[in-house]
Amino acid sequence: MEVIEVLHMNGGIGDTSYANNSLLQQKVISMTKPIREQAITDLYCSSLPKKICIAELGCSSGPNTLFVVSELIKTVSTICKKLGHDQSPEFQVYLNDLPGNDFNTIFRSLPGFHANLRNKMGSELGPCFFTGTPGSFYDRLFPTESLHFVHSSYSLHFLSKVPDGIESNKRNIYMASTSPPSVVKAYYDQFQTDFSMFLKCRSEELVTGGRMVLTLLGRRSDDPTSKEGCYIWELLATALSDMVSEGLIEEEKLNSFNIPKYTPCPAEVKTEVQKEGSFSIDLLEVSEVNWNAYNDELCPSDEFKDGGYNVTKCMRAVAEPILVSHFGKTIMDEVFRRYREIIADRMSKERTEFINVTVSMTRKG
Amino acid sequence: MEVIEVLHMNGGIGDTSYANNSLLQQKVISMTKPIREQAITDLYCSSLPKKICIAELGCSSGPNTLFVVSELIKTVSTICKKLGHDQSPEFQVYLNDLPGNDFNTIFRSLPGFHANLRNKMGSELGPCFFTGTPGSFYDRLFPTESLHFVHSSYSLHFLSKVPDGIESNKRNIYMASTSPPSVVKAYYDQFQTDFSMFLKCRSEELVTGGRMVLTLLGRRSDDPTSKEGCYIWELLATALSDMVSEGLIEEEKLNSFNIPKYTPCPAEVKTEVQKEGSFSIDLLEVSEVNWNAYNDELCPSDEFKDGGYNVTKCMRAVAEPILVSHFGKTIMDEVFRRYREIIADRMSKERTEFINVTVSMTRKG
Repeated sequence: MEVIEVLHMNGGIGDTSYANNSLLQQKVISMTKPIREQAITDLYCSSLPKKICIAELGCSSGPNTLFVVSELIKTVSTICKKLGHDQSPEFQVYLNDLPGNDFNTIFRSLPGFHANLRNKMGSELGPCFFTGTPGSFYDRLFPTESLHFVHSSYSLHFLSKVPDGIESNKRNIYMASTSPPSVVKAYYDQFQTDFSMFLKCRSEELVTGGRMVLTLLGRRSDDPTSKEGCYIWELLATALSDMVSEGLIEEEKLNSFNIPKYTPCPAEVKTEVQKEGSFSIDLLEVSEVNWNAYNDELCPSDEFKDGGYNVTKCMRAVAEPILVSHFGKTIMDEVFRRYREIIADRMSKERTEFINVTVSMTRKG
Repeated sequence: MEVIEVLHMNGGIGDTSYANNSLLQQKVISMTKPIREQAITDLYCSSLPKKICIAELGCSSGPNTLFVVSELIKTVSTICKKLGHDQSPEFQVYLNDLPGNDFNTIFRSLPGFHANLRNKMGSELGPCFFTGTPGSFYDRLFPTESLHFVHSSYSLHFLSKVPDGIESNKRNIYMASTSPPSVVKAYYDQFQTDFSMFLKCRSEELVTGGRMVLTLLGRRSDDPTSKEGCYIWELLATALSDMVSEGLIEEEKLNSFNIPKYTPCPAEVKTEVQKEGSFSIDLLEVSEVNWNAYNDELCPSDEFKDGGYNVTKCMRAVAEPILVSHFGKTIMDEVFRRYREIIADRMSKERTEFINVTVSMTRKG
């Protein structure tokens, strides 16, 4: 719990590094929109509920916190109008993240967000009720059969903790081609434990017919140490390792550092869903997004067109809190200066992509 | 909304003035415990719900935020055990206050609170789910028929705004014996508008048979300007008025300042409940608590035994944010130095009490 708490604490709305990271996430959210639209449409049309309870898990506190939720609400309202229903269902929205998340900032933005939504949609908009639910999604968060729709994007690849028994993963900070098999197994075991617990908790919370759409950072390959999922972290390990060689970081310090995440392939996701047994998979899809999510359209300045700069910024938002808690604050600028150089070099020489695994499921009866 | 937002922003957990204010509230909460126990017992025994959704309205962020909720949960668990039910219902707890409230502090205290509750109660404790709901209780906060129990203590005497048309309430800051009848009427009108809106919203949110227990600062007398409800504010007005006479505050500044609250008598509460029509009153009770809520048992030091000091501290926690927003910060120490002298003088010469009106209601079918 402590580790993941650190991971989620980065980046309030005013934080540039978060803004950088959030742009990548925004791109991924846009790409997966049709999947969510299909799921919420099916949900609404199959049961015409009077109330739709939506949970956004790992909502963070930034520009994406309310984005998917507002999209889902708009979709339902549009269908309602199309079908000639005079009344939209009520929406109960649960915004979830760890207790360390900045809920105050979210809550203070809600009146404006709500007014804006009402402005855009007018009388089509059904009553919306927003609540915050602090806690780990690897535990129960909601009462039994209280949810209709669960969404999570770019949160579930974080494990509940660093796997046990990976002391031999020296000079690496995540699974890598040079990691011993026992380390790879420990990472996979932890993923299985966490993801199956996640599914079990959600299966209890969702009503029969309820939908869940999840997007995780993952990989296409069956090989868990393939570059797709691990490369970006291997390059960070290289930067840290160079600093060990130069005496700037103690070797023991690096050897004892590992990232609590797992980038599954679609088959691994499918296996856990099938083992847990409560959900049928409607769709399981892989997509990719360039390490540099910025394009001309979104670019506020030339600076952002430097891919190395952008990716480093993005990774810094994700990795810095956990690096600081282990290595201290003073060396961070140097770590990320080196990391940026290494990333820029790789990006100029090869195709560099993040792989997303998206799964859309229905709670079986 | 702006005014009441200021009123609710005072006092985080670490704030001494809040701690002072909260002790008075704690005393009132203890006094009204039997009423809540009866209500939740009746609710549980009459319908044996699998899930009990409880809303704490105006929860603030301090030692009392979770107090009533934990008491309610314990009461239900004890009944369950007595009745030989093997399973406690699930509890969904909605903590409500205005968006400016410090929900982050509440949320970060929840894991410890929950662990503590589980420690004390062991396996008797049913699953508890905590959420925060930001917004004004003079508006809808929850989906239709989603609540079983609503509680609010020492919040509902705050109006949604300062009544319109009370420019003639010169040198007074609340209703007073010297207020023109139009001012008294304006205050009562605003109370009627706000309280009936509150009842309407809650009537939509509560299930049939759902319970609501409210405690407001009020008065016994039918006369809205009677000392019981107004005296404490009249003494503050005296302090401010003295400062006007000495040229320390502009007269116009004082004349345009009024407190957005109303201290109803039981008959006024009853009238609104009957007019709204959705609730039956199970109990309507008046109680009193000395201005100086501190007794030897609770007193950490001799300083706290000085009633003038204590009451001023308590009133400062409530009144300072709104005074600051109108008069500025610089004169506050002087205002409360004078207020303390006046209060101490009155307390030495007469019996000084706050009057509480508590009403327990059931949502009719």
